[in-house]
Amino acid sequence: MIANHPFGACLPTFGNCADRYCLGGYGGGGNTVEEMLDLSKKVEGLDGLELVGNWHVNDQNIRDVAKMFKDRGLKIPMLVPDLWTQAKWGRGSLAAPDARTRQAAVDEVKKVMDWAAELDCPYVDVWPGQDGFDYSFQADYVEAWKWLREGLAVCSQHNDKVRVLVEYKLKEPRTHCFVDHASTVLLLLQGLDKVGVLLDVGHSLAAGENVAEAAALLSTYGKLDYLHLNDNYRSWDDDMIVGAVHLVEYLELVYWLKRLGYKGWLTLDIFPYREDGVAAATQCYRWMTAFSRAVDRVGLEEFTRAIRDADACQASDLVRRAMNL
Amino acid sequence: MIANHPFGACLPTFGNCADRYCLGGYGGGGNTVEEMLDLSKKVEGLDGLELVGNWHVNDQNIRDVAKMFKDRGLKIPMLVPDLWTQAKWGRGSLAAPDARTRQAAVDEVKKVMDWAAELDCPYVDVWPGQDGFDYSFQADYVEAWKWLREGLAVCSQHNDKVRVLVEYKLKEPRTHCFVDHASTVLLLLQGLDKVGVLLDVGHSLAAGENVAEAAALLSTYGKLDYLHLNDNYRSWDDDMIVGAVHLVEYLELVYWLKRLGYKGWLTLDIFPYREDGVAAATQCYRWMTAFSRAVDRVGLEEFTRAIRDADACQASDLVRRAMNL
Amino acid sequence: MIANHPFGACLPTFGNCADRYCLGGYGGGGNTVEEMLDLSKKVEGLDGLELVGNWHVNDQNIRDVAKMFKDRGLKIPMLVPDLWTQAKWGRGSLAAPDARTRQAAVDEVKKVMDWAAELDCPYVDVWPGQDGFDYSFQADYVEAWKWLREGLAVCSQHNDKVRVLVEYKLKEPRTHCFVDHASTVLLLLQGLDKVGVLLDVGHSLAAGENVAEAAALLSTYGKLDYLHLNDNYRSWDDDMIVGAVHLVEYLELVYWLKRLGYKGWLTLDIFPYREDGVAAATQCYRWMTAFSRAVDRVGLEEFTRAIRDADACQASDLVRRAMNL
Amino acid sequence: MIANHPFGACLPTFGNCADRYCLGGYGGGGNTVEEMLDLSKKVEGLDGLELVGNWHVNDQNIRDVAKMFKDRGLKIPMLVPDLWTQAKWGRGSLAAPDARTRQAAVDEVKKVMDWAAELDCPYVDVWPGQDGFDYSFQADYVEAWKWLREGLAVCSQHNDKVRVLVEYKLKEPRTHCFVDHASTVLLLLQGLDKVGVLLDVGHSLAAGENVAEAAALLSTYGKLDYLHLNDNYRSWDDDMIVGAVHLVEYLELVYWLKRLGYKGWLTLDIFPYREDGVAAATQCYRWMTAFSRAVDRVGLEEFTRAIRDADACQASDLVRRAMNL
Repeated sequence: MIANHPFGACLPTFGNCADRYCLGGYGGGGNTVEEMLDLSKKVEGLDGLELVGNWHVNDQNIRDVAKMFKDRGLKIPMLVPDLWTQAKWGRGSLAAPDARTRQAAVDEVKKVMDWAAELDCPYVDVWPGQDGFDYSFQADYVEAWKWLREGLAVCSQHNDKVRVLVEYKLKEPRTHCFVDHASTVLLLLQGLDKVGVLLDVGHSLAAGENVAEAAALLSTYGKLDYLHLNDNYRSWDDDMIVGAVHLVEYLELVYWLKRLGYKGWLTLDIFPYREDGVAAATQCYRWMTAFSRAVDRVGLEEFTRAIRDADACQASDLVRRAMNL
Repeated sequence: MIANHPFGACLPTFGNCADRYCLGGYGGGGNTVEEMLDLSKKVEGLDGLELVGNWHVNDQNIRDVAKMFKDRGLKIPMLVPDLWTQAKWGRGSLAAPDARTRQAAVDEVKKVMDWAAELDCPYVDVWPGQDGFDYSFQADYVEAWKWLREGLAVCSQHNDKVRVLVEYKLKEPRTHCFVDHASTVLLLLQGLDKVGVLLDVGHSLAAGENVAEAAALLSTYGKLDYLHLNDNYRSWDDDMIVGAVHLVEYLELVYWLKRLGYKGWLTLDIFPYREDGVAAATQCYRWMTAFSRAVDRVGLEEFTRAIRDADACQASDLVRRAMNL
Repeated sequence: MIANHPFGACLPTFGNCADRYCLGGYGGGGNTVEEMLDLSKKVEGLDGLELVGNWHVNDQNIRDVAKMFKDRGLKIPMLVPDLWTQAKWGRGSLAAPDARTRQAAVDEVKKVMDWAAELDCPYVDVWPGQDGFDYSFQADYVEAWKWLREGLAVCSQHNDKVRVLVEYKLKEPRTHCFVDHASTVLLLLQGLDKVGVLLDVGHSLAAGENVAEAAALLSTYGKLDYLHLNDNYRSWDDDMIVGAVHLVEYLELVYWLKRLGYKGWLTLDIFPYREDGVAAATQCYRWMTAFSRAVDRVGLEEFTRAIRDADACQASDLVRRAMNL
Repeated sequence: MIANHPFGACLPTFGNCADRYCLGGYGGGGNTVEEMLDLSKKVEGLDGLELVGNWHVNDQNIRDVAKMFKDRGLKIPMLVPDLWTQAKWGRGSLAAPDARTRQAAVDEVKKVMDWAAELDCPYVDVWPGQDGFDYSFQADYVEAWKWLREGLAVCSQHNDKVRVLVEYKLKEPRTHCFVDHASTVLLLLQGLDKVGVLLDVGHSLAAGENVAEAAALLSTYGKLDYLHLNDNYRSWDDDMIVGAVHLVEYLELVYWLKRLGYKGWLTLDIFPYREDGVAAATQCYRWMTAFSRAVDRVGLEEFTRAIRDADACQASDLVRRAMNL
C-alpha cells in the first residue's frame, strides 16, 4: 500500500527490457511469469501486478496464473489486451482501416475481459497505441473517431464484471495516436458510461499536460479510474523511476488525488532498461510514500488556500515546506 | 477570396509589432485604425479585418469605424473582446479566481457582442488566454472548468445575432492555459450549442496537434466555425507567415477543409515583427491559393483513396505531385 | 550571499513586467532606478544588481547611479549593453547583415565596458538575442559566425578592467538565435581567451540541456564565469521563480558548482509578471539556500560515488535523502 | 546518384523493423544480407549500402560480403562499429564509466576500421549513442568528455586508409547523449583533425537545430563529411521518409550543400516500420531529386541575394517558386 492506495506494477518491470536498438534487452530480470512474480515480492508494499493478454496469461495457463498469484498473496488489478505487440496490429486495432482487424481487436478485448472476470480482475486496459498515423494523408480522422467509439461501445457491453478503461497517449508506437489527451478520451467516451480512463502519468507529461489538471478533469467527469506511475523528460515516454524529474508535479498530483478522494490503484509502468527492476520499483514506492507525507506535512487546507489565492510565491513556499527543505 | 473562402486579417497585421524585449515595436505599419485599413487595401484578395474591442472599436468611434469599413468595401468578420491586454485580466477573465473579475469578463463579452451586432459582424472571439496558471498549486482546475462553462453559457444567451466562438491555445500569456486543445474546447462546450470554436492553425501546431485532425474533429462536432492562419515552429505561437514551415500540414488541412465542406473565413493572425505587413499578408495569400491549387491538382478522390489505404508511400507520392515537384 | 556566492538580481525584477499582449505591464514594482533599488533592499541576502545600458545607466546619470548603489551597500556585478530593446537591432547586432549596424553594436559594447570600468563593475553581458533568424533562407550562417567572432574579438581588446561575457540562448526574440548552446558559445570563443560565458539556467533548460552538464563543460574550458538563475517549462524562457519546476536539475547543478569550485555570482533573471518582485526574489533566495543545504546533507563525496557507479537507483535514493524526504 | 551525389542506404532499410513494443518487427523486408542487397537493387539510383559491424560483416563473412557487393555493382560507403546493440554497451562505449568497456569500444572501432580498409570502405561511423545518461547524478560530465576525446584520438591514429566520423544525436537510446549537437561534436573534435562528422538530418532536427545551419557550421570547420537522410517531427528520431515533414528545411539544406560544395554521400537512415522498404527508399530518392531541381529552378544566386537581404517575404516567395507552386 502507498498511503491508502493499493500499489501495483506491470509484470515486465521484473523482466528484461529492450529497445529498438538493443532488441535482445539490456539484461537482468526474470524470464518466466513465475520468476518475475518472485522478484516482485521483494518490493516493499506491492499488492498486485498487471498482466498482458497472451504474453502472460492465456487459455492454457490461466489456472496456473491464478494459483501463482494466490500463493504469493498478490492481486491482478488489470489485464491488458495485446493490441500492440504483433505485426497484425501495425496499422491499428480498434480503429484500423481494415474492418476485419477492427473486429479482431474487439474480439481480443472481449476475450481478455472474460479472462479478467475469471481471475477476479476488475479492469481491462484498452491502450489503442497502434491506432493513429505516422504521416499526413494516412488516416481518415472522421472515420477513425467513429470506429473507436463503436468498438468501445461494443466492448463495454460484453461483461459486466469487468470495466473497460482506455489509456491515452500522445504518440508511440505511432508518431500520432488518436487518443492523445485527457480531454480527448473524455470527449471520445461521452455517452459511454461503462468505459473509464487509465491515467498514465508519463503519458500525461509527454502530452504536455499538467498531470494534476488531467486528474481533476477526469474526476470531474467521473472517469479517474486507475493510475500508471512513471516519469520522463516530457518529449518521450521514457518510463523512468518516479521522482526522477517531476517532483513538484508529482506533489501537486498527490495533493489532488487526496482532495478528489481517489482510492484506486497506483501501479508502476516503468521500463528499467539498465536498472535492477526490484531496486527501481522500490525507489518508486519510496518516492510515492514521501510525496504523500509531504502533502500531509503542509495539509490539504493550506494548499487549497494558496490555490484559491492563485499566489505563486505562497505556493512556492508551501512546496518547499512540504519538501521539508 | 482564397478559392471560395472570404479572406481576412487581424488589424494589427498592419501596425507596429512589439515583443517583451522591444516594447516600442520593431517599427513600420500604421498607427491609427484608418492608416492600418488603408494599408490592408494593398493586400490581394482581402475581404475584411478583425478588430479588438476597446482598442479598435468602442462606443465613441463605432459609427466612424462602420463608415471606414464601408468606404473601403471591407467587412468585419470578427470582434475580439479585450480579455488579455490589461493588467486587470492578469489572473484570468472568465475563469479568474476573483468573482468580480469573472463578472467583468462576461460583461465585456456581452458589450462587444452588441457592438458586433451593430456592425453586422457575425462572431465574437472569446480567447481566454489569461485563464490558466503559471505555477503548480496556482489554479483550482475543478472550479475553473465550471466557471468557464458558466461564463460561456451566459454569454451565449446574450445576443442571438452574434455567435460566440472560443479560441483555444496551449500557453501564452500563461505558461498553461485551461482551454488548450481542440478536444478540450469541444468537451468544454458539450451542451453549449450556441458556442462555436475558432481554430487558430498556429495554436493547433504549438499544441502538438495535427491541424487537419483538429479540423476534422471540430467538424464532427459541428463546431468548425472559423480559422486563423499563421505558422510557427511548434514550440511557441510565433505567428509567422503561412508557408514558412508546415507545407505538408497546410496541404493536408486544405484537403480536409474542402472535404469537410468548410465555407467560412480564412483570417490571418500573424505578427510580422520585422516584416512589412502588406508584403507578409500577400505572401500568406499566395501560399493559401497555392495550397488550394495543389490539392486540386491531385484531386480529393485520389487523396481520399491514399488515406483509405493508409499507405505512407502513396501519400508521399501524392504530396510531391500536388506540390508540382 | 547564497552559501558562499554573492547574490544578485537584474534590476527589472523590481519593475513592471510586460509581455507582447499586455504591453503596459501587469503592474506593481518601481518606476525609477531608485525605487527599484529600494525595493531590492527588502530581499534577503541580496548583494548587487545588474543594469542595462542606456535604460538604467548612461553618461548623464552614471555618477548618480554609483552613489545610489554605494548609499545602499549594493554592488553592480554586471552591465548589459542594450543590443535588443530597440528597433534598430531588430535584424541583429554583432551579426547583423548590415555592416554599419555591426559597427554600432561593437561601439555600444565598448561604451558600456567603459561605464562598467567607471562603476567598478567587472563584467559586461553581451547577449546577441537579436542575432539569428526567424525564417529559412534569412541568414548567411557562415558569414554570421565570422561576424560574431570578429566583433567579440574587437570588444575583448577594448578595456582590460572589464571581462566580456557572452550569454547564449536558443531562441527569442528570434525564433533561432545563432549562439544557442553551451557548446556553441565555447566553439565560438575558441581562441578568444578574454571572453567568457554567462550561463543562464533558464536558457540552458529551454535549449534542452542538462544544466549541470553545461556548467561542467563551460568549466572544463575555463569559461564558467557567471550564472543567471530562473526556471521554466523548457519550451520557452518563462523566467520563473527558482524551484518552480526543476528541483532535481537544480540540486545537481548546485552539486556541480560546489565540485567545480565555482565562486562567482548567482544572479536572478526572473520576470515576475503577476508576482510581487520582492516576494519572488525572496523565494528564489530560499530555494537556492535550500539546495545548497540539501547537497551538504548528503555530501559531495557520496554524490560523487553514485555518479561514478552510474547507478540510477542509488542516485534516486540520494536525491530523496538530500531533499530530506 | 542524386544530382551529383552518390546515393546510399543503411542495409536495415530492406529488413524487418522493430520497436520496443513490437520486438518481432512489423514484417516485410529481407532476412539475410543477400536478400536485403537484392531488394536494394530495386531502388532507383542507389550506389551503395552501409553495414553494421558483426551484424552484417565479420571476420567469417568479409570476403563473401565483398563479393556480394561487387556482383551487384554496389559500394560500401560506411561501416558502423556496433557500439549500441548489445547489453554490454548499455552504460556506454567510448565514455563508459568502466575502463575495460572503454577499451573494448576502442578495440571494436579499430577492428571495424580494418574491415573497412579491406572492403575499400572510406569511413567508419562512430555513433556513441549509449554514451550519455538517463538520470541526474548518473554521469561524470568532465570525465566523460575526456574519455570521448581520448578514445577518438586513439582510434583516429589506427588506420590511415579509413576516416573516423562521429555521428551526433541528442538522445536515444539514452535520454541524454553526450555528443548532442553539431557544435558539441565540433568542440569535442578540436585538435583531432583526422576525425570528421556524420550529419544525420533527423538527429539535427530532433536536436532543435536548423539543419542547414548545422551543415554550414560543420563545413566552416572542415568536417562536413557525410550525410544521413530521413525526417521526423523533431521530438524524436522517427526515421521517416524524406519529405514527410520538413520540405522548407530540406530545400534550404540542399541549397547550402550546393553552395558549400558538398560532394559526399547522401545515405538514407530510415526505419520503414510499416512501409515497404523499397517503396520508402524510392520516395526518398524522388524527394531529394525534386529538392535539387527546386533549388536549381530559382538558382543559387537569387537565393543568396535573398539571404543577404535577410528578407523573410522575399525568401517566402522564392521558396514557393522553387516548389513550383
